Amino acid sequence: MTMRQFGPLFKRMTIIGVGLIGGSLGLKCKLEGLVDEVVGVGRGVRNLEDALSLRAIDSYTHDAAQGVKGADLVVLATPVGSYNSLVEVMRPHLKRDALVTDVGSVKGALVDMLEESMPSGVRFIGGHPIAGKEAAGAAHSDPDLFNGKRCILTPTSKTDADALALAVALWEGVGSEVTFMDPYIHDSLLAITSHLPQIAAYSLVRGVEELCAENLEAREYFGTGFKDTTRLASSPPEMWRDICLYNSAEILNAIKKFQEVLKEVEVRVALGDGDALMGIFQRARSFREALLERSEEKLSRPAGE
Amino acid sequence: MTMRQFGPLFKRMTIIGVGLIGGSLGLKCKLEGLVDEVVGVGRGVRNLEDALSLRAIDSYTHDAAQGVKGADLVVLATPVGSYNSLVEVMRPHLKRDALVTDVGSVKGALVDMLEESMPSGVRFIGGHPIAGKEAAGAAHSDPDLFNGKRCILTPTSKTDADALALAVALWEGVGSEVTFMDPYIHDSLLAITSHLPQIAAYSLVRGVEELCAENLEAREYFGTGFKDTTRLASSPPEMWRDICLYNSAEILNAIKKFQEVLKEVEVRVALGDGDALMGIFQRARSFREALLERSEEKLSRPAGE
Repeated sequence: MTMRQFGPLFKRMTIIGVGLIGGSLGLKCKLEGLVDEVVGVGRGVRNLEDALSLRAIDSYTHDAAQGVKGADLVVLATPVGSYNSLVEVMRPHLKRDALVTDVGSVKGALVDMLEESMPSGVRFIGGHPIAGKEAAGAAHSDPDLFNGKRCILTPTSKTDADALALAVALWEGVGSEVTFMDPYIHDSLLAITSHLPQIAAYSLVRGVEELCAENLEAREYFGTGFKDTTRLASSPPEMWRDICLYNSAEILNAIKKFQEVLKEVEVRVALGDGDALMGIFQRARSFREALLERSEEKLSRPAGE
Repeated sequence: MTMRQFGPLFKRMTIIGVGLIGGSLGLKCKLEGLVDEVVGVGRGVRNLEDALSLRAIDSYTHDAAQGVKGADLVVLATPVGSYNSLVEVMRPHLKRDALVTDVGSVKGALVDMLEESMPSGVRFIGGHPIAGKEAAGAAHSDPDLFNGKRCILTPTSKTDADALALAVALWEGVGSEVTFMDPYIHDSLLAITSHLPQIAAYSLVRGVEELCAENLEAREYFGTGFKDTTRLASSPPEMWRDICLYNSAEILNAIKKFQEVLKEVEVRVALGDGDALMGIFQRARSFREALLERSEEKLSRPAGE
């Protein structure tokens, strides 16, 4: 953070995909003086105009090749399934010494691919800010979105140390707590903490929709419990389709475990086994509360510790 | 509500089980002048003392037989599995013309049982306020808990009209929007809107706990998405054990549908079928948003309409 005393970290930052994460990052970087100029690359004019009027970006283009020209920082903030074709398009136009990073929820093989695809002199570091809300689009950009939240960076044996220091300064500059992690370990952890809960939320809503089709009146009786339990189901489908496709092995492993627990609950309900149900529910409550305490402790630590 | 101009609805209200719902009901009834006096019946002294210091109750006893003496309103607010033995204990001591009601999440056969168990002259009406939060205990009593929320009453062919009018006045008096429903239809609806989401939340936490046992570092990477998705898993296990036991057929039907959807997602992830996943996720998002719009419309209607 002291680097800012000597001017911005980057002159021109190009954000490819100006959604909630991309827009919030641009907005905060400008507010903090971390960058001089932000260029947005995207498809929807209305969304890009929203980003412009919020000052999350200074200009935009629909053409990634055009957009990355002259940028010393390029951030991929589109669904991870687009990375392959984006790399093809932007590769010839990347500035020598540019830093390329991303905010995707899958790392692993994507990091390998991106590292190998960079032209000579261009440095890549995978990133994943653990922050978000279900609202999509630049209109919901929030400069405090990353505040006190973790950002996982996934350096590898090929990572350039100066580039890594810049990426750390960027994410600490927007308020994140930076952690380093192996890209493949990232994917196994996130399958548990984020991808499975997401799939549970989508599946619960779809199951409930099917049940409501047989019981129309039920639609009138949803309360705040259902609303919270399924908040994630309002997340962008494209993003989650790609996460499922690119982290399929870890996600399948997590789904399997969830199915085993559901089966156990089903059997205990069918048997009328109150003691077993009590045990399952108590254990769930205790584990959730231990996790929350842990995350509150973390969040209440003084900044920078 | 105009009834209040002529004095309280009840002289002595006895609440059996002074938890979040019981405590909130007592508190609001006293604030609104719906009752003269509230007697709490419960086991834990500390919880009862909390209720007393919040003025949710005026006095308490551990003995339900003692507690219901002289009450013209008795509210059962314990886990539904306790109703059978409570009825045995309180039956000989109920005042003639008393109204007995409950706040349980299962009705059906429990309503039949309670109706049949009442001594001559005592009227029973099943009730279920669709309100709550995961925090348990009288210490979390909130006089606004029922405000603008539905309360389902389940009158039957045996229901006394005057008693029903009193129950409506009670729940409207604490701010609820009262709906009538057949007790068995109540159970089939709530299995979908409330019981399945609850089981999904408990099961998700248990699955995640198992996965974390194989991947200890994951515990550090839970975000707000997981927190919201599993909020319900901090609900009281005893209450949910009883709901599962007393509404098992409807709950098993709902679990089955949820398992089918999860299986479909699993298969599509395994096949790498992005189009199918996109379709499932889009449908879930649309359905959730349609439900939320519906509930916001309802809540934005003028009170009393």
